[in-house]
Amino acid sequence: MLSLIILRMFSFQVTAKNNRARAGVFSTPHGNLITPVFAPVGTQATVKTLTPEHLKGINASLVLSNTYHLYLRPGDELVRDMGGLHKFMQWHNPMLTDSGGFQVFSLSNTRKIDDDGVTFKSHIDGSTHRFTPEKSIAIQENLGADIIMAFDECSDPNDLAYSKIAMDRTHRWAERSLKAKTRANQALFGIVQGGVNPDLRAESAIFISSLDTPGVAIGGLSVGETKEEMHTTLDVVLPLLPENKPRYLMGVGTPEDIINGVVRGVDIFDCVLPTRLARHHSAFTPEGRLNMMNATFARDERPLDETCDCYTCKTFTRAYIRHLIVAKELLAGTLLSIHNLRALIRLMEQIRIYIAEGSFELRVPGSLKSMGE
Amino acid sequence: MLSLIILRMFSFQVTAKNNRARAGVFSTPHGNLITPVFAPVGTQATVKTLTPEHLKGINASLVLSNTYHLYLRPGDELVRDMGGLHKFMQWHNPMLTDSGGFQVFSLSNTRKIDDDGVTFKSHIDGSTHRFTPEKSIAIQENLGADIIMAFDECSDPNDLAYSKIAMDRTHRWAERSLKAKTRANQALFGIVQGGVNPDLRAESAIFISSLDTPGVAIGGLSVGETKEEMHTTLDVVLPLLPENKPRYLMGVGTPEDIINGVVRGVDIFDCVLPTRLARHHSAFTPEGRLNMMNATFARDERPLDETCDCYTCKTFTRAYIRHLIVAKELLAGTLLSIHNLRALIRLMEQIRIYIAEGSFELRVPGSLKSMGE
Repeated sequence: MLSLIILRMFSFQVTAKNNRARAGVFSTPHGNLITPVFAPVGTQATVKTLTPEHLKGINASLVLSNTYHLYLRPGDELVRDMGGLHKFMQWHNPMLTDSGGFQVFSLSNTRKIDDDGVTFKSHIDGSTHRFTPEKSIAIQENLGADIIMAFDECSDPNDLAYSKIAMDRTHRWAERSLKAKTRANQALFGIVQGGVNPDLRAESAIFISSLDTPGVAIGGLSVGETKEEMHTTLDVVLPLLPENKPRYLMGVGTPEDIINGVVRGVDIFDCVLPTRLARHHSAFTPEGRLNMMNATFARDERPLDETCDCYTCKTFTRAYIRHLIVAKELLAGTLLSIHNLRALIRLMEQIRIYIAEGSFELRVPGSLKSMGE
Repeated sequence: MLSLIILRMFSFQVTAKNNRARAGVFSTPHGNLITPVFAPVGTQATVKTLTPEHLKGINASLVLSNTYHLYLRPGDELVRDMGGLHKFMQWHNPMLTDSGGFQVFSLSNTRKIDDDGVTFKSHIDGSTHRFTPEKSIAIQENLGADIIMAFDECSDPNDLAYSKIAMDRTHRWAERSLKAKTRANQALFGIVQGGVNPDLRAESAIFISSLDTPGVAIGGLSVGETKEEMHTTLDVVLPLLPENKPRYLMGVGTPEDIINGVVRGVDIFDCVLPTRLARHHSAFTPEGRLNMMNATFARDERPLDETCDCYTCKTFTRAYIRHLIVAKELLAGTLLSIHNLRALIRLMEQIRIYIAEGSFELRVPGSLKSMGE
């Protein structure tokens, strides 16, 4: 394992392979990321309802935060002046920021795209702002995450003509993002787009792979396409990506989606699902996703998941969690977030062991069982 | 210190005195309470936004929970069947439940008092319920706290005639509460009432002291009377209470009120103030109670209180806490609750040291300084 210690910053080493699935190590200024990895989302410089101590307790390694949100509030210059995102939110392990592209394009009624960038209105106060590739990189440099993303345009997967335009723009913006970047201690990832069209996706995979970046991301999935379209797209894209760079599937996903990504060679995932489900009273359990507000659980003395090692499962009964939900106590969201995130992080730990053992593909169905999929 | 170990259950030992202020130890089935003590309030079997781990981290010892709330939701029989309140909420240190009296009387428009008890409507669904002294004790036995309270009637301090009626009823109900009690592992405290009338308060103090209970509580204060009336009432009541029983001043209070209570010989306090202030963005600091949403703190890199040893102060800046508040992130309430509770618990620790040293009365102003009073 000495090789891990002498890894150059942002170098990626594949440590085991099972057909297309792989395990690896990506070195960052805030420590090595062991992949495949799932990143909890801390939209506004906080993983909702959790302290950094909670995140350490569930063995989180990479945390994602959102450029759009932090630019608007508290402002990227403020975060910079406070010592950067790691210090501001007291997360001293690897961090990733998105480019703001996805959030801005989601403001479908109030944004205007041109070849140079996007003008949009803040969802907070309606004020007008403009993102360009250069602006996105400048913001992300102020925030100071270890992994930063090229500014991209996510298209409607069902609109072929638009997918072509958005892809071409994404490629030009990736080049501009790369050129705008000034810091050696941040890894910029380009983003593959192209909707669900195999030809566009192949073209984009080849183009983005040709850029001198330490990693490659796949954007524009889990945005309304079918599962089959997602899998087909991954089957087109992944074989075209360099073996020696980590692949990040943005905004994905469910335990099932994650396993389907790992099978195809994805290394990094993020998704708001575990914490969003938690705030809607839903828990990953071996019996499936359970709505813990259900009266069935009023006198259930079992933990959420008897096989889980998280603080919530080691400490509290379903009956207590259900009481907190019914009584509208915020602690319910904290306890469910701890468990749901730990469930996904445990899944990744299990997957990494199986890949190291060479048994991953054999065990795929078993990996899902504990998530109730 | 061997004497502490051989204390009989619910025995109280005064370990130091400074004029009327005293430090002591009260033994309970879930450990010894070192007094003077401040109890965080866990209304619905949870101190809002905090885990039991957070409470241990701030050195909380006694936690209060509410009979009225738990009776309605999730139901005291459910809590009993889940192993009692300690196990249900996973707080394995001393606990106290109130009698439900105060909450029921607060429902001023929907309750009807008679000599036998109170009929009231639930604030949750408007359903009709009835509390009597016997019912309150039965509920508190189901909940299973270490310290339980006699059912009492809290009067309007400005209505002398009503204060007399409520006091007489409180006395009869205290006797009935004591008779209704069946468990040896719970300490029942009677409650002194009598509004702000010195004669009634003296009569009540003498009557409640005459009952065979391990402790005495003072109710009906911090309910709209002036500070002077509160102090005068304490000056009348406390000298009439037995030296060898702990005295609990219910629902009090601010750091200033607590010190004014300790000076006069009070041993136990509880109040929702620290957690309620936290949810309204307010922090106890050496500069006073600060509203942390204020733009002044946007770039303030200091902790809430540089002298504080809590997780929040040891970890986060005011700038970050202000960001969480402005961004409506629930973590703000958690971090402020940790600090505000720790501030009061630290005050009690300081007071106990000063009493042990014999310097308490000399240092009273200094004790308040760190709370910004």
